[in-house]
Amino acid sequence: MADKAQLQEAIKTQGEVVRKLKSEKASKEQIDEEVAKLLQFKAQLGGDEGKHVFVLKTAKGTRDYNPKQMAIREKVFNIIISCFKRHGAETIDTPVFELKETLTGKYGEDSKLIYDLKDQGGELLSLRYDLTVPFARYLAMNKITNIKRYHIAKVYRRDNPAMTRGRYREFYQCDFDIAGQYDAMIPDAECLKIVYEILNELDLGDFHIKVNDRRILDGMFAVCGVPDEKFRTICSTVDKLDKMAWEDVKKEMVNEKGLSEDVANRIGEYVNVFPLVFSYIYMKLLFSYLELFQVTDKVVFDLSLARGLDYYTGVIYEAILSQTIPAPAEQNGADEAAVSVGSVAGGGRYDGLVGMFDPKGRKVPCVGVSIGIERIFSIMEQKAETSSEKVRTTETQVLVASAQKNLLEERLKLTSELWNTGIKAEVLYKKNPKLLSQLQHCEETGIPLVAILGEQELKDGVVKLRNVASREEVDVPRADLVDEIKKRTL
Amino acid sequence: MADKAQLQEAIKTQGEVVRKLKSEKASKEQIDEEVAKLLQFKAQLGGDEGKHVFVLKTAKGTRDYNPKQMAIREKVFNIIISCFKRHGAETIDTPVFELKETLTGKYGEDSKLIYDLKDQGGELLSLRYDLTVPFARYLAMNKITNIKRYHIAKVYRRDNPAMTRGRYREFYQCDFDIAGQYDAMIPDAECLKIVYEILNELDLGDFHIKVNDRRILDGMFAVCGVPDEKFRTICSTVDKLDKMAWEDVKKEMVNEKGLSEDVANRIGEYVNVFPLVFSYIYMKLLFSYLELFQVTDKVVFDLSLARGLDYYTGVIYEAILSQTIPAPAEQNGADEAAVSVGSVAGGGRYDGLVGMFDPKGRKVPCVGVSIGIERIFSIMEQKAETSSEKVRTTETQVLVASAQKNLLEERLKLTSELWNTGIKAEVLYKKNPKLLSQLQHCEETGIPLVAILGEQELKDGVVKLRNVASREEVDVPRADLVDEIKKRTL
Repeated sequence: MADKAQLQEAIKTQGEVVRKLKSEKASKEQIDEEVAKLLQFKAQLGGDEGKHVFVLKTAKGTRDYNPKQMAIREKVFNIIISCFKRHGAETIDTPVFELKETLTGKYGEDSKLIYDLKDQGGELLSLRYDLTVPFARYLAMNKITNIKRYHIAKVYRRDNPAMTRGRYREFYQCDFDIAGQYDAMIPDAECLKIVYEILNELDLGDFHIKVNDRRILDGMFAVCGVPDEKFRTICSTVDKLDKMAWEDVKKEMVNEKGLSEDVANRIGEYVNVFPLVFSYIYMKLLFSYLELFQVTDKVVFDLSLARGLDYYTGVIYEAILSQTIPAPAEQNGADEAAVSVGSVAGGGRYDGLVGMFDPKGRKVPCVGVSIGIERIFSIMEQKAETSSEKVRTTETQVLVASAQKNLLEERLKLTSELWNTGIKAEVLYKKNPKLLSQLQHCEETGIPLVAILGEQELKDGVVKLRNVASREEVDVPRADLVDEIKKRTL
Repeated sequence: MADKAQLQEAIKTQGEVVRKLKSEKASKEQIDEEVAKLLQFKAQLGGDEGKHVFVLKTAKGTRDYNPKQMAIREKVFNIIISCFKRHGAETIDTPVFELKETLTGKYGEDSKLIYDLKDQGGELLSLRYDLTVPFARYLAMNKITNIKRYHIAKVYRRDNPAMTRGRYREFYQCDFDIAGQYDAMIPDAECLKIVYEILNELDLGDFHIKVNDRRILDGMFAVCGVPDEKFRTICSTVDKLDKMAWEDVKKEMVNEKGLSEDVANRIGEYVNVFPLVFSYIYMKLLFSYLELFQVTDKVVFDLSLARGLDYYTGVIYEAILSQTIPAPAEQNGADEAAVSVGSVAGGGRYDGLVGMFDPKGRKVPCVGVSIGIERIFSIMEQKAETSSEKVRTTETQVLVASAQKNLLEERLKLTSELWNTGIKAEVLYKKNPKLLSQLQHCEETGIPLVAILGEQELKDGVVKLRNVASREEVDVPRADLVDEIKKRTL
């Protein structure tokens, strides 16, 4: 806890920051952020100054998932995980933070977006920025030379885009990778097959998968006369071709990246004129496997695809939905370095990364794909909004209810019996709830059946089973109740 | 990036720290930690000094989960989540970090264990310490007055226990909570029923659940003459009765917490002599519901149970395995404040926490339970070690193989056909793998079937299906292959 004088000083300074921003007419977002910080200092100070200023929000760029969002998320994860398992993948997990130096030097310009933990004594730590670098660290540390694994977990980026575009600072990544020394292009083709299967099953409309190869880009850059040390930064610029016109891309190369106009023009010729020639020569083997996997209808060679990350060394790819989804579908956390409108998956080969961690520099060739799950969630949420079908957030099969007073104990007893046989059952936590409120609970949450108990039913050894939708009721002998519920809620 | 001179200074200072510790013969662990920090500085400096000193490890107190551990984890989660769903629970998720002030003042003495993020501009953030405070923040923020939800996620504590005891700084919590204004003790009883069901299904051997009520403790403390402001800290001491003798607990109360000997003796009388009387008077209603839920055989009233956390206001409970598991089963992350040997679940009622977040102080009564999932993982891992049954880390049903050369394309084609029908299939990524290495892959990973292709089989339109365990082989017409695989791998 900082001491009082320090806090008062911090409040004073922060107050000035806010006043300055206001006088400068800074953006609302920027002002809000600094005000929030001011309020936090005040809250820490406590006492009168601290009262009534409590900030009730999640951290900037993060969000809670409510039960409805979680139900959709579960559905999406099930489809994706089933696909990964169908392809024989194992799964691993790594800690949310790594030693700071593990992440150092892996992300090029984007390193500034890494969240660091405060130095509270001990090691210097950072939140993971993606799942690929921790995967490479894991392989090197455990001397694993071949594995096929998926990893679904949250990653963290101190990005500062307009929040209205819905890009988050905490978001899921969903990665599938194949590590090992294998014959050329076979695992690479399987990664593309996986993207194809997942996008088909998620039913997100038409899509296509762009493919390129970093070696082609490097070769092209060399032929065009790009200096070696500028390969990666020119890659990032070429990668913007899906969002920017060639003229603007060229401008960036010349004005910002310091390329000569001449060299830039030559790149333009290759990108715009000769893609097919390259496709044929370099990608023949990959496409022959894609043919066997019956996915070539969606795969296109695209020499302008570069992908931002430094570590790719071979085939790279990106899947794009044809259908443009209206706002707020801008959201995409999958791979900020390579985001384009509609991009929902991306990846490639990175044969050098594990070697960066191995003490003896031993390489483990890897190829993988990252599914842009946040964008997919957002599309699925919009579909659910417009659909007439209600998203259920529980799986409850039956509510145990009563129309009469003083039957709490009987309700609890029957509910317990149902739980013990594996039936998903609920009971209202009231001594004497009204039948109407019990039925309303079913309608609100989509519970299909009500098991109604009354004096008469207890005497007769039956339960009145009511179908919530049709309102039909039928007396079921208590001994048959479980089977009857199972039959009706298959 | 810190500048070079700064780093060199830091290396010098840190070198002195290490030398000092060594000269003082500090613990190996402490020295290792400071050495690691020194190496990190050197690595940051780069150049000759930085070479060969890369630290290939996970952050202190964290670990990777390998595929085998993940398979066990998935099994445990499935059992627990099924139980939560059977009781009609929804699920939510919250960000891994919260505004620092959200966590401030919620954890008493343990607040020093909270991980803070570095101030990189913007808000002051901390990693979540448990799932209960974020849940309360979520309810207040969204003005939710009733919900039954579970939340399974990792939490973070800068604890410093001997690592050999296997306690982690990053660990899972697995919480189920019921929020809402309901009739007394009904949701509380359901939480205990859930603990009972889960521990039964996990098959961890015999267990019992201790129950107490903070109000009883408070009443007892008042009667004994404990000053109001010492209730919570005396609670923490009473809670140690399961690990310490009464005489030592008394010593702590008197010497450390400043209680008079007289008052301490009176507490001793209540705790040691009168528990049954209390049980009967205060807990009658709860036990009547537990009777209906058929769980009283495992539930015992225990006046010495206090639980460390500040926010409990009513019923509290803790489940303990009878069987003591040998090291390294000491591990327990569920609730460090209330850990006892064998403790695998704990929780209670906290009616005041949500009100601390609501701007108008509106209360939402809550009761919940946290399953000590890390300890359970560890027990299950040990069981798997000693069991003869091998843990499979994939679900692959069949490997598509060949005994002959030049059949890669045929293998890929058949594998793709199987994937398209939902069969979990693998193929080796080699042009011409040996049959023996293909069969070995099956035996190592537990794949039960091999679909073998050869020139003859292709000509005859069949596939040779081999049972890996029995080595039996049978020719199956290609059209029947999918059904045959499904039939054999139900």
